[in-house]
Amino acid sequence: MTDIKELGEFGLLERLTGDIKPGHGVVKGIGDDCAVIEGEDFYKLVTTDMLVSGDHFRCDWHSPWQIGWKSIVVNVSDIASMGGLPDYALVSMALPDGTEVEFMEEVFKGMKDACDSHGVDIIGGDTTHGNELVINVAMLGHVERELLCLRSDARLGDMICITGDLGKSWAGLELLRASKTGYTEFYLQPQCQLDTGRMLAPYVNAMIDVSDGLASEVKHICRESGVGAEIKMKDIPISEKTIEAGSSLGKDPLEWALSGGEDFELLYTVSREQYKNVKSTGPIVIGSILDDGVYLFDGHRKPLKGGYDHFKRDG
Amino acid sequence: MTDIKELGEFGLLERLTGDIKPGHGVVKGIGDDCAVIEGEDFYKLVTTDMLVSGDHFRCDWHSPWQIGWKSIVVNVSDIASMGGLPDYALVSMALPDGTEVEFMEEVFKGMKDACDSHGVDIIGGDTTHGNELVINVAMLGHVERELLCLRSDARLGDMICITGDLGKSWAGLELLRASKTGYTEFYLQPQCQLDTGRMLAPYVNAMIDVSDGLASEVKHICRESGVGAEIKMKDIPISEKTIEAGSSLGKDPLEWALSGGEDFELLYTVSREQYKNVKSTGPIVIGSILDDGVYLFDGHRKPLKGGYDHFKRDG
Repeated sequence: MTDIKELGEFGLLERLTGDIKPGHGVVKGIGDDCAVIEGEDFYKLVTTDMLVSGDHFRCDWHSPWQIGWKSIVVNVSDIASMGGLPDYALVSMALPDGTEVEFMEEVFKGMKDACDSHGVDIIGGDTTHGNELVINVAMLGHVERELLCLRSDARLGDMICITGDLGKSWAGLELLRASKTGYTEFYLQPQCQLDTGRMLAPYVNAMIDVSDGLASEVKHICRESGVGAEIKMKDIPISEKTIEAGSSLGKDPLEWALSGGEDFELLYTVSREQYKNVKSTGPIVIGSILDDGVYLFDGHRKPLKGGYDHFKRDG
Repeated sequence: MTDIKELGEFGLLERLTGDIKPGHGVVKGIGDDCAVIEGEDFYKLVTTDMLVSGDHFRCDWHSPWQIGWKSIVVNVSDIASMGGLPDYALVSMALPDGTEVEFMEEVFKGMKDACDSHGVDIIGGDTTHGNELVINVAMLGHVERELLCLRSDARLGDMICITGDLGKSWAGLELLRASKTGYTEFYLQPQCQLDTGRMLAPYVNAMIDVSDGLASEVKHICRESGVGAEIKMKDIPISEKTIEAGSSLGKDPLEWALSGGEDFELLYTVSREQYKNVKSTGPIVIGSILDDGVYLFDGHRKPLKGGYDHFKRDG
């Protein structure tokens, strides 16, 4: 028998779903931020994310409103990474014995506020019992055919860009774990880049959201596009607040950027010709697409390591 | 503060979602087996169901294949109750530490077999960590506009029919709880009525699947349609095997039929004129739609009580 920890999250997924062929009308099945289905005027986008108490939120850290907010935003981020717009959400919840109605009202208020902020309607769901609070959101959206951005669209010579700071979510988590205060707001109440995604979509090639750390997402793009990449360490954007958090905890914020995840920035590749068209969004250029190999450059090239794995997590 | 147990599953849902209006393009939002979205040639159907270890399956009772099978079938049943056909599934899973890859391969084989049996493609999902095994499936389907069957379409004078035996799932659960053998196969490996649903759809008015017990589903139809109903106790179909299980356990199988749930038969209402068109499916007539009140008739009328509630469950 093999423990899932040995394969890791992505190894397990490959083992379970590697033989599944995209079905009728499926433009992109398993292996991107959303599934993409043929439609009349638009492609339809579908995504789903499960949040588990203790893993994705903690009731002693997050307010119930923030738990609800996060459950929606992580899905909107997946839609944003395809260049699309979200439309509808279905919310499934397992609630433990003793859950208070007032707590769930606040969770739902967070969901509704996040939905209102991003143009989403809640249209259904499922409520059941469990031993721990679990929230699953399935989200439907759409994207104009010509705007669809896949992980597999990176091209040799593309610039690799990111929409904002990395490591900021993990900084907050580490501060809370150490019972410290400071820069915790992004971890507790993440934001996604829906508007920027729409502005980028006409011009960029591959796009993905940073949910499992920069290293993991760069490798996803390279594997799906059949290319390589070099990331310049000095250009990875890490904010002063994140660096301060690292100093106060004696930890390396670069590790948080590479492996922490949940920053929900958009990582994308864009050709040198199209770069001028994305400049207004404030792109941060962190590397370029090569024909082979995935490297981190810090004076010399070394393999790009890291990425968050739910089955190999620490703490 | 109010415990969710005081409101119950449906009271909580009303409190959390009562103010949500159906959004743009939504034909039917919260409050039916599926959400219904406008489409070009067809209505789009979307549904989701969460299965939690210990509540919806038990790893010492269900084989991993059966857990996977059930997670798909419960969603297909929701699509069937709208008169539709399922197309795509997204599978989210929280896996506890120590889960074995081979176990998950069997779970996925059950899912894939259930998908193959019902014409469904798995197109995405999410895999994460949790302290107990949780599987959420979101399913997309479609139905021809003229075939859509809502809970709210029952009409005064309609006959109330069911597609098959009730109480059979709960019989299996009770036998397993008592460490007995016998009629457990339906509980462990439920079947849904997709083909029958399609045959019924052109002729019936309201339709719903029996997931929370007959009493609960009759009341859903009455509330959503603004009508009443009388169910004839002697006509509720309970199989010999279920009656035997009741005898061996000293329990009343009628209670299992009314409140047990997970039978996944289709409950529907049909006019006397259209009844001839559904006769080939073997309908079991159990009552009729009144203008007001929801009754069980066993020689005299009494209020119809019962229905499964995840927050008020026994055992």
